[in-house]
Amino acid sequence: MGMIGGSTEAFIGAVHRKAAALDGEIELVCGAFSSDPKKSKATGQALYIDPKRVYASYAEMIEQEKLLPENERMQFVSIVTPNHVHLAPAQMALENGFHVIIDKPLAFSLAEAKTLRKVVEKSGLVLALTHTYTGYPMVKEARQLVKQGKIGKVRKVYVEYHQGWLTNFIEGNNKQASWRTDPKRSGLGGAIGDIGTHAANLAEYISGLEIAEISADLNIVVKGRQLDDDSAMLLRFNNGATGILSATQIAAGEENNHNIRIYGDKGAIVWRQEEPNTLLVRVYGKPNEVYRTGWDYLSDAAKLNTRTPWGHPEGYLEAFANLYLAFGRAVRAWKPGKKIDPVKFDFPDVNDGVRGMAFVETVIKSANSNRKWTKFKGE
Amino acid sequence: MGMIGGSTEAFIGAVHRKAAALDGEIELVCGAFSSDPKKSKATGQALYIDPKRVYASYAEMIEQEKLLPENERMQFVSIVTPNHVHLAPAQMALENGFHVIIDKPLAFSLAEAKTLRKVVEKSGLVLALTHTYTGYPMVKEARQLVKQGKIGKVRKVYVEYHQGWLTNFIEGNNKQASWRTDPKRSGLGGAIGDIGTHAANLAEYISGLEIAEISADLNIVVKGRQLDDDSAMLLRFNNGATGILSATQIAAGEENNHNIRIYGDKGAIVWRQEEPNTLLVRVYGKPNEVYRTGWDYLSDAAKLNTRTPWGHPEGYLEAFANLYLAFGRAVRAWKPGKKIDPVKFDFPDVNDGVRGMAFVETVIKSANSNRKWTKFKGE
Amino acid sequence: MGMIGGSTEAFIGAVHRKAAALDGEIELVCGAFSSDPKKSKATGQALYIDPKRVYASYAEMIEQEKLLPENERMQFVSIVTPNHVHLAPAQMALENGFHVIIDKPLAFSLAEAKTLRKVVEKSGLVLALTHTYTGYPMVKEARQLVKQGKIGKVRKVYVEYHQGWLTNFIEGNNKQASWRTDPKRSGLGGAIGDIGTHAANLAEYISGLEIAEISADLNIVVKGRQLDDDSAMLLRFNNGATGILSATQIAAGEENNHNIRIYGDKGAIVWRQEEPNTLLVRVYGKPNEVYRTGWDYLSDAAKLNTRTPWGHPEGYLEAFANLYLAFGRAVRAWKPGKKIDPVKFDFPDVNDGVRGMAFVETVIKSANSNRKWTKFKGE
Amino acid sequence: MGMIGGSTEAFIGAVHRKAAALDGEIELVCGAFSSDPKKSKATGQALYIDPKRVYASYAEMIEQEKLLPENERMQFVSIVTPNHVHLAPAQMALENGFHVIIDKPLAFSLAEAKTLRKVVEKSGLVLALTHTYTGYPMVKEARQLVKQGKIGKVRKVYVEYHQGWLTNFIEGNNKQASWRTDPKRSGLGGAIGDIGTHAANLAEYISGLEIAEISADLNIVVKGRQLDDDSAMLLRFNNGATGILSATQIAAGEENNHNIRIYGDKGAIVWRQEEPNTLLVRVYGKPNEVYRTGWDYLSDAAKLNTRTPWGHPEGYLEAFANLYLAFGRAVRAWKPGKKIDPVKFDFPDVNDGVRGMAFVETVIKSANSNRKWTKFKGE
Repeated sequence: MGMIGGSTEAFIGAVHRKAAALDGEIELVCGAFSSDPKKSKATGQALYIDPKRVYASYAEMIEQEKLLPENERMQFVSIVTPNHVHLAPAQMALENGFHVIIDKPLAFSLAEAKTLRKVVEKSGLVLALTHTYTGYPMVKEARQLVKQGKIGKVRKVYVEYHQGWLTNFIEGNNKQASWRTDPKRSGLGGAIGDIGTHAANLAEYISGLEIAEISADLNIVVKGRQLDDDSAMLLRFNNGATGILSATQIAAGEENNHNIRIYGDKGAIVWRQEEPNTLLVRVYGKPNEVYRTGWDYLSDAAKLNTRTPWGHPEGYLEAFANLYLAFGRAVRAWKPGKKIDPVKFDFPDVNDGVRGMAFVETVIKSANSNRKWTKFKGE
Repeated sequence: MGMIGGSTEAFIGAVHRKAAALDGEIELVCGAFSSDPKKSKATGQALYIDPKRVYASYAEMIEQEKLLPENERMQFVSIVTPNHVHLAPAQMALENGFHVIIDKPLAFSLAEAKTLRKVVEKSGLVLALTHTYTGYPMVKEARQLVKQGKIGKVRKVYVEYHQGWLTNFIEGNNKQASWRTDPKRSGLGGAIGDIGTHAANLAEYISGLEIAEISADLNIVVKGRQLDDDSAMLLRFNNGATGILSATQIAAGEENNHNIRIYGDKGAIVWRQEEPNTLLVRVYGKPNEVYRTGWDYLSDAAKLNTRTPWGHPEGYLEAFANLYLAFGRAVRAWKPGKKIDPVKFDFPDVNDGVRGMAFVETVIKSANSNRKWTKFKGE
Repeated sequence: MGMIGGSTEAFIGAVHRKAAALDGEIELVCGAFSSDPKKSKATGQALYIDPKRVYASYAEMIEQEKLLPENERMQFVSIVTPNHVHLAPAQMALENGFHVIIDKPLAFSLAEAKTLRKVVEKSGLVLALTHTYTGYPMVKEARQLVKQGKIGKVRKVYVEYHQGWLTNFIEGNNKQASWRTDPKRSGLGGAIGDIGTHAANLAEYISGLEIAEISADLNIVVKGRQLDDDSAMLLRFNNGATGILSATQIAAGEENNHNIRIYGDKGAIVWRQEEPNTLLVRVYGKPNEVYRTGWDYLSDAAKLNTRTPWGHPEGYLEAFANLYLAFGRAVRAWKPGKKIDPVKFDFPDVNDGVRGMAFVETVIKSANSNRKWTKFKGE
Repeated sequence: MGMIGGSTEAFIGAVHRKAAALDGEIELVCGAFSSDPKKSKATGQALYIDPKRVYASYAEMIEQEKLLPENERMQFVSIVTPNHVHLAPAQMALENGFHVIIDKPLAFSLAEAKTLRKVVEKSGLVLALTHTYTGYPMVKEARQLVKQGKIGKVRKVYVEYHQGWLTNFIEGNNKQASWRTDPKRSGLGGAIGDIGTHAANLAEYISGLEIAEISADLNIVVKGRQLDDDSAMLLRFNNGATGILSATQIAAGEENNHNIRIYGDKGAIVWRQEEPNTLLVRVYGKPNEVYRTGWDYLSDAAKLNTRTPWGHPEGYLEAFANLYLAFGRAVRAWKPGKKIDPVKFDFPDVNDGVRGMAFVETVIKSANSNRKWTKFKGE
């Protein structure tokens, strides 16, 4: 693996590195960790990377690595830069024969996302998008249970992603806040791009439904902020179910409260990211059931994504690592000319990425037209 | 106390009776428990009421009790009939000099509610409305904390009232379901009238704000049902805060999940009815605080509404009884010509009732106009 | 009902009154509320009792009430005095034909308890002991589940009763603390008498087993205190199961944390008094089950002791009221010469009381003999 | 790092590998993964280890690695074999200049543990023992809070380690169960060695106290089992505090319920391994406080052991990795002749290991002498 972005100052780069390293299946062999060559070098050194393979730019990395013998060069790139530097390195990597794993959202805009999809399709290579939360075993279990009809026909979906870290105007001091609220680096969406896309993805992943229409309200709550930091939207799904999606970053005191409740005509499932190894299952008229990771009664999908026995909690990094594992399996299974089925390998792919960018633009369109029900085509 | 409605078959009548009896301050001395004189009689007998004071109709009760010496007759009536039989008995009671405590919603329609308000004002008597949830000590504590600025300026209010008891079409077998979903007995609102009004009342009571505008979506999820059983609405408050109110009765597996989360620019409070003796307080940047009933650090408002020491849980009936206690104090303090201040005695009154009916009609108006932001005047 | 003790200054008297009043089945008609006639009078007045029936002493009350016509006089007495004033009034009441309900522990000593048992037996009347916690519906459900074999053969019982209210030496200022730590009024046991007896009773009630042997450690943690405020003991049950009972009143920050966990060879049940409407049931190898009050799937024993629908929390006073209801049913069913079966009516009786006193004395005996395994005969 | 034991069939080997790999600070370069050379080879292959460095025995590994140039050979060994194969490889590694990290308990017996301590002292090298639970950030926070006097003088310690995986006799089919209950491979202690040592270590680590005396009860609950699977013991600490330690593996339905509650004269702290990112702090008379990982208000000790922002849960593997990080820091800081202070680097060392083995033997001694208070010297 070669990494693009992720200097020691950044947050998500280290997450990707730990996730990739955890299972001993992936080795970080090179990187262009910053657009500032000095920082890139320093990061490479801190990571014990061979100095010869710490590059000044992603272009240089892709070019130089390609010159190495096949069994020595990196097999794929991990892109962890801000949104406005997603398309170009991804495209270059794919066009030079490297698979790609990329932090979400897929790109700066829907148009860029669609371009990237074409590049992926043309290349025939594997691209994974790190919608982290679908990597949790209990999310996978929830998806299976819904599919098996445990809760009946889905009627109602409540999905929340509530954070509080943007309660105050911290754009000046906080690197994360700085780029994530800057339309030039983040794109059209603030909270809806950063976390709303996760929520939409989670709702669709577990329910097996598609969001069909959105009626959205967007707010900038904190004075001086440039992008939405708060949103609320009503959803209609393709089976007639309705729902509420609420994504905010100004909920003071909330940490990373991403949760989902899905109600069918027979029962319900509830999952909360902050207590991820528990899944509450309610079958109407019976005692509630509490599913826990590590037990034999779980689906293979859940078991395959768990490392430790019951009661030994796994968390965010493990969920992230599950995406890397699935991507890694796909990369290993890949052969020239053979297309990989992301559903089989169970990782979010370029289509999820396009859908995420379409979500952002649909939400904005609805919000700008007085919360009109706006078709969500997902392009 | 004389009761109107509340035969042994009904649900809420028994709740009122237990709430009134709990503290030994109120005695049930007479009743017209059913429009069916036989049922009324049987109920009176089961309740050990003097048979002479078990009446065949509320009209008879009011007339006959008035004939008794002042220190023998009932002092007030408790009205626990379905919504369409609220106005008439309340009006007659007030016009004959009896105070009134009445189950919510106040009346069958906003027009009726306004009529009743005029009657109350003219009578100068005390009328209390049983918005149960504001009777909980931790709700009172929450209100005090917000007032004191503990969470700063309120920005966001999430209030939910999720039940599952109407998951299936049970109108045929279930007396509660039967009248509560019948527009002829319940009025224009289904879930929004039955529980949505509680949610709106709770949000305003704790936040100290007024809902200013509503954008609402109403659904009939279960086939054959006549009134809304599911709703979702966006709120704007008079200080610029926004919120979501979600009230549904088809959330299979939910019991009586009424909860509220209020976020200010300094912190947040969270209260859940199903675990009512706990109040979560989050001051941004500090450890979360968990307030519990019974401790000295609580406000007088909370202490006044608690009967047992810490760790001895109180619940729904106690919250209900708190409303009766407050109403009872007001009745005792009342003197002819002296108006009672419901805020001082801390019980919901006829204005809350009018506001509740206006809420129902505003929600319907918005839902019928494609979720248009609709001013909520509260009349 | 006539009450002995329970002036407005006391804690448990008010609890008994509210519990008795809640369901409208019992009326407080007279009382000797204090050994101080002035306080008794004042209490009677505050409770709206006919002044003629507020007595200066329990002896006077029993004598005078007996002179009233049968359908006018009190039917039973409720004794809520400190432990050293249990036997005498109970004995006198029984010998004069009044049933008795009495706060636990039954008496000042095992010897007194046995005396009282003889009096009860001779009288043929009903005596109930208010082991409150067995009044909770989920405790009753737990007992049924164990009986039905849901968790298999019981192997291990952990029962805790942890409070913190005696963290500091408050004997000087706190009426409760003052008598409950005074060997002259409380008896031989401090924490073990006050709360340890509850814990032992709960363990036996739910498990259906009997404690057979005890190895106990007693501590006085707070300087100057006269009776144990902390204890820990190992238990052996009559089926070979073992357990731990831990009762303390110096666990700073604990409120009324009474909880029990019972493990069998097939599964486990867990109940916590502070969240009493929930029962956790674990069947080994399956998802955990969460039972909640109010649902149809519960046993009749649980349903009979619940007043409100699911999600409307009931608490301590309702549990207490369940004991009064059961006692009341027994009193109504009683006929001269007909013995009442407390198991059928499901309330703790004089035998539980004797067993409680034997528990205290067994614990002390073991603690005084270097934690020797001491047979618990229960006399 | 070179690994001894930990074939792909084992449980704890993979845990060590993931923990070591997570932060990119440690590389697994060689191993003797099984006493069966075939299994060792297969494991090496699965782990992408250079086949030349996959050894048939630990002796071979130590010898061969020593022949490599210093900057190429392994720096330390990780020993993850059953208890009876701890001393010999550790001794050989140390005597050949390799640091050691070793799974707990330290050795097969107290005698062996003391021998190993001598070897460590003589070598001057670093030895770390993986008492995993002290690697959790909130355990470190708890320790700091107690040290700072937040809860006052400690009076009472309840520590539990409840598992249910040995509910049935699974020795035949389960590799873990097989050796952990076999006195020839596990040593004198069953549950008390496997998990009781963790509990004792945690209690001392957080409280800052030493267990001074133990009165223990040991049981073999499941028929046919050879070592204790259940225990309960009373503790006395060196400051006069008392406590209960309960370790069992037959609590059907329990997963890995390791928890601790410490009460001082000012307050209490509560930590539960299954929800490890939360620490409950109770200061008597104030609202409870809930500390959560990732916030600025935490101590440096907690922060240093956290990788992700608040609300991104970390778990067991991260706690384990924290031990590897601390050990790694010590190894890097080590210079010939310079002794490393394990307290400064914050990892459990050989003295903790000796203390653990002494704990097992003290417990057995007490259990065999009728729960006599037995001095725990810790040797």
